[in-house]
Amino acid sequence: MTINDIAQLAGVAKSTVSRYLNGGSVSRKTREKLDEIVRETGYSPNTFAQSLKAKRTNIVGTIIPRLDSYSSNEILEGIDQELWQRQLQLIITNSDQNVAREIENIYALARQKADAIILFGGVITSDHLKAIHEVNIPVVILGQETPDVHCLVHDEAHAGITMGRHITSLGHQKILLLRVKKEDRAIGQLRRAAIIEGLSQKASVEVEEQEVSFVFEEAYQQAKLILPKTKATAIICVTDTIALAVMKAAHELSYVIPNDFSLAGFGGYNATTIVSPAITTVRYPYRELGKKAVTTVLQLLNAEDVPMKQIMKNELIVRESTQKITLS
Amino acid sequence: MTINDIAQLAGVAKSTVSRYLNGGSVSRKTREKLDEIVRETGYSPNTFAQSLKAKRTNIVGTIIPRLDSYSSNEILEGIDQELWQRQLQLIITNSDQNVAREIENIYALARQKADAIILFGGVITSDHLKAIHEVNIPVVILGQETPDVHCLVHDEAHAGITMGRHITSLGHQKILLLRVKKEDRAIGQLRRAAIIEGLSQKASVEVEEQEVSFVFEEAYQQAKLILPKTKATAIICVTDTIALAVMKAAHELSYVIPNDFSLAGFGGYNATTIVSPAITTVRYPYRELGKKAVTTVLQLLNAEDVPMKQIMKNELIVRESTQKITLS
Repeated sequence: MTINDIAQLAGVAKSTVSRYLNGGSVSRKTREKLDEIVRETGYSPNTFAQSLKAKRTNIVGTIIPRLDSYSSNEILEGIDQELWQRQLQLIITNSDQNVAREIENIYALARQKADAIILFGGVITSDHLKAIHEVNIPVVILGQETPDVHCLVHDEAHAGITMGRHITSLGHQKILLLRVKKEDRAIGQLRRAAIIEGLSQKASVEVEEQEVSFVFEEAYQQAKLILPKTKATAIICVTDTIALAVMKAAHELSYVIPNDFSLAGFGGYNATTIVSPAITTVRYPYRELGKKAVTTVLQLLNAEDVPMKQIMKNELIVRESTQKITLS
Repeated sequence: MTINDIAQLAGVAKSTVSRYLNGGSVSRKTREKLDEIVRETGYSPNTFAQSLKAKRTNIVGTIIPRLDSYSSNEILEGIDQELWQRQLQLIITNSDQNVAREIENIYALARQKADAIILFGGVITSDHLKAIHEVNIPVVILGQETPDVHCLVHDEAHAGITMGRHITSLGHQKILLLRVKKEDRAIGQLRRAAIIEGLSQKASVEVEEQEVSFVFEEAYQQAKLILPKTKATAIICVTDTIALAVMKAAHELSYVIPNDFSLAGFGGYNATTIVSPAITTVRYPYRELGKKAVTTVLQLLNAEDVPMKQIMKNELIVRESTQKITLS
């Protein structure tokens, strides 16, 4: 029984079987078909995986969106710790939030013979999928759900709904939601929608939305323009970086948090505990996500079965920046 | 005229000449001798450099000490921008403040055929120098001065003296200096000594010193123990991360800054402007350092003359956290 035989039986290209055995990206339908053939024929993908092992470089490549992102750095810490324990080498490449660079980095890491790639997902395009398909090594995407690619995502529904409920439970009715671009599906769409869902479980809640940048300095400049115009008594920011930017703008404009308005973010970044008042947030398990990404990559390299999507839990952390509405 | 001829004339090994032409590490004496021979014989190292160019991978490797360091991330931003403009590829490796890993990363980057290495310096050992010597590609060290290796350093003398003078000019006489381990020469020795020098230009100043960690969480735990015991009216921290950790501990212990004590750091980290009161600091030009590291590496690859040590300027930024001593 050879790869050729398997390919013929499945009616797919040999490269598809190779990708399947390598833990690369294969459509669900093809995967199910190949699973069945492997079961029926007793073909042992492990033999194949073993032979691959010899060719391994023990390098795992990562592609991060920004060099100054708290969440990326925490995830990298988790990845690094886990790889180091296993004597595997981590190399990091940056895409600077540029889709073209992200795709270039996928090919570059493959050229550098990385055994696998962990991609910190932002905006995922068809070019990404094409590159992931072509490089023919396991790719795991973090933070964004993508069809036919293994991914680890946060439980955005839980995070958003819990936060929305917390804010309305404090009696707030006029809410300002600082969201990000829709092209970021996880944060721009799923997280946002869940917040709205959580908020709208109380009737008579008015939600005003403004789109801001992920980048601290830009969000800060935007907040300085937005704050004087809003009548909201609570501001929910889809990331802690945005919440910290709002806090800086608020200090500068002499607003007092939480008396003038409550403020909340998402992430659980360290800085939210340093500022005063400390910021209410949802803590995302970034380091654990990084560790899980490594175990997932290793399972794929060993041709083990891995669910296409794994979901990480999170929890609301109520701090000083949110309080019951004071009726004046 | 071949490399062999040059080596014979200079009385050194061919590999030394190759290292010299590659911009690698060579002792000052040998460098001067080779400079002279190249001048006298009219041997053109550029021809050699040209032939090397064909073999280039256009990859520049970096070795960073930690994934969660503000200054490292800022320097990386500068490096990344500069490399990207020139269509060169950046790969980042982490040593997690572990000397053995740092040295492994030097060899690993050489194996991955990086054209050059930018090493974010911490504790530099003889094993570092050996590795730098052996890999035979240009290595630039950032932040630590090292004999016979090209380095870019901060003007620690200016930073420390300026800060020391600022604190005594406010009338403070009892100062607590939170320093780091001496093995870090730039911060643990040079920066510390310059602060002491700045402080001691006023007579009757008492300086108490405590050693703390570079890492936020550890410094925060240490600060919680140190703060209740000190009688200082001003606390100088050798990094902004330590100053932020002190601020968190102070909030928790209900000290009011700057009324209970003035607080200052070094670095110019973003977070020092978000907290309240904003923290007095010395702004180090991290991004510019990163950019300069790239131009230095490219000069070395082109066999151009580069000073062994380049010094970056910095400036004191006075903010709300330091004030004139209030006599009670």
